[in-house]
Amino acid sequence: MQTNRITDLFSIKYPLIQAGMIWASGWKLASATSNAGGLGIIGAGSMYPEILREHIQKCKKATTKPFAVNVPMLYPDIEKIIEIIIEEDVEIVFTSAGNPKTWTKHLQDHNIKVVHVVSSVKFGQKAQDAGVDAVVAEGFEAGGHNGRDETTTLTLIPMITKAIDIPVIAAGGIANGNAMLATMILGADAVQVGTRFVASHEASSHLNFKKEVVKAKEGDTQLTLKELAPVRLLKNKFFNDIQTLYKQTPTKDELIALLGRARAKKGMFEGDLEEGELEIGQISGLISDILPASEIVDNMINEFEEAKKRACDLK
Amino acid sequence: MQTNRITDLFSIKYPLIQAGMIWASGWKLASATSNAGGLGIIGAGSMYPEILREHIQKCKKATTKPFAVNVPMLYPDIEKIIEIIIEEDVEIVFTSAGNPKTWTKHLQDHNIKVVHVVSSVKFGQKAQDAGVDAVVAEGFEAGGHNGRDETTTLTLIPMITKAIDIPVIAAGGIANGNAMLATMILGADAVQVGTRFVASHEASSHLNFKKEVVKAKEGDTQLTLKELAPVRLLKNKFFNDIQTLYKQTPTKDELIALLGRARAKKGMFEGDLEEGELEIGQISGLISDILPASEIVDNMINEFEEAKKRACDLK
Repeated sequence: MQTNRITDLFSIKYPLIQAGMIWASGWKLASATSNAGGLGIIGAGSMYPEILREHIQKCKKATTKPFAVNVPMLYPDIEKIIEIIIEEDVEIVFTSAGNPKTWTKHLQDHNIKVVHVVSSVKFGQKAQDAGVDAVVAEGFEAGGHNGRDETTTLTLIPMITKAIDIPVIAAGGIANGNAMLATMILGADAVQVGTRFVASHEASSHLNFKKEVVKAKEGDTQLTLKELAPVRLLKNKFFNDIQTLYKQTPTKDELIALLGRARAKKGMFEGDLEEGELEIGQISGLISDILPASEIVDNMINEFEEAKKRACDLK
Repeated sequence: MQTNRITDLFSIKYPLIQAGMIWASGWKLASATSNAGGLGIIGAGSMYPEILREHIQKCKKATTKPFAVNVPMLYPDIEKIIEIIIEEDVEIVFTSAGNPKTWTKHLQDHNIKVVHVVSSVKFGQKAQDAGVDAVVAEGFEAGGHNGRDETTTLTLIPMITKAIDIPVIAAGGIANGNAMLATMILGADAVQVGTRFVASHEASSHLNFKKEVVKAKEGDTQLTLKELAPVRLLKNKFFNDIQTLYKQTPTKDELIALLGRARAKKGMFEGDLEEGELEIGQISGLISDILPASEIVDNMINEFEEAKKRACDLK
């Protein structure tokens, strides 16, 4: 596979990035992905600062390849997180859920590459104006937190790559090499893959949750809690409780009260499939096995190469 | 371009189908698309039976190539519509919004090819069981009426092509040759294109509406009225009125009362951009000109061929 703007930017072999995901992507998954030739990302969103430091240090021991840290900028201890990232010589940071102007320059001043996650053309333009090195453009079908415009990956990628010049990493709905090639034909320089890596041996997600991802079929996820922050969830008991509450026209505070604390940890990390919040993408309907991360990367690259051949002599 | 299952089924040159759309696709658009090598479709949903007969007869005079008629099966005068289709020797029928079992065999007994429009894997399987010749699999980003599962084209196509064996035509979010190739890499045999053909010279849509489609940007459409039948609309005054009503927790009857009668005709055919219902897809954000249908077909096929070349030596 030849190099492109994203493989050059990150010094990686394949334009394939494993998404930073709370309660799923610690040092084990990130290092396994990076060792396989993709870019692994540690998801800081579910880690206390010193836990993050431990994950970064373990990741450095487990791989000599580049890896990244994902930082949701609404994180309460954000200054401490940024400090640790700089102290530990992390080379690449993916920021999300916040204003890219706040930290981009500071991180770049410390020779850190900065990528910002967006869900619309408008936010893509703002991220480019803020000076980030690349954006992740994430469509409506993606798991977890999501944009308000509900723009799908198939429509977002051509519109955002037309509007901005920096590299674009497509995300949302991508779990195999066909979708990787498809989104790159639409103009993306690389892909970010979340859901597929949740169903991996190295994800720190609870096995109950991984099995639920494998079981999921088309139509089993939905975007909800739009009044708070839109999030795509598996339709379990907790999801149904939200829908029941909606029928009573809840206030925002009542929604917040139902959500409560630590629902995501309860579901995805502790494996409570009834009361927990299970964040996953639509493409879970296509996933039928739990695999080592290296096999996920290898499969996707092989499928990508085969899809290229099929495209070449497509009828 | 070589033949495939869909070009063989319809005896057309390109696996490119112009969607049957109310107040947009009459005989002019359908015959222009068919003459250009695609498959044109007359949208019967907004036509009285004898008007449909007139459109079919004019279409036959305007092209010697195959064309189709789209029939929403909830149409009140459905028996009359089916009778006219058979009397006028229409060769291909696309059915939507109803049970594919009801009319498929009757139409096929009259040597008519039947394609059913679905928005989920489950309905795709039901359509296959009903014996249809192919399905259109339409994603969440599509304009107009839409499915309840909100599955996007990028995720629907690989899941449905894995689940059923008959040919699959991808729809939703496809307005250029890149998206055509992308969805075919995902497994589709052909594409159906709606929004792009609304902004054509031959569409019977009001010029005001066509210009609004050209002006639309990413984020300017939204799926709404989910309690009645989910429909993707441009965000105009009428759309905002719906959102305002939603804040008051309306009953279904109150929503029906607001919708009223002939809103779609008022907006899309009569050009009332404030009070009318403007059905269009997310990909309107990518469209920047009103073109002859033949140019839309030529452009898409040229882009498709170029995208194939790019895919072959993709970095």
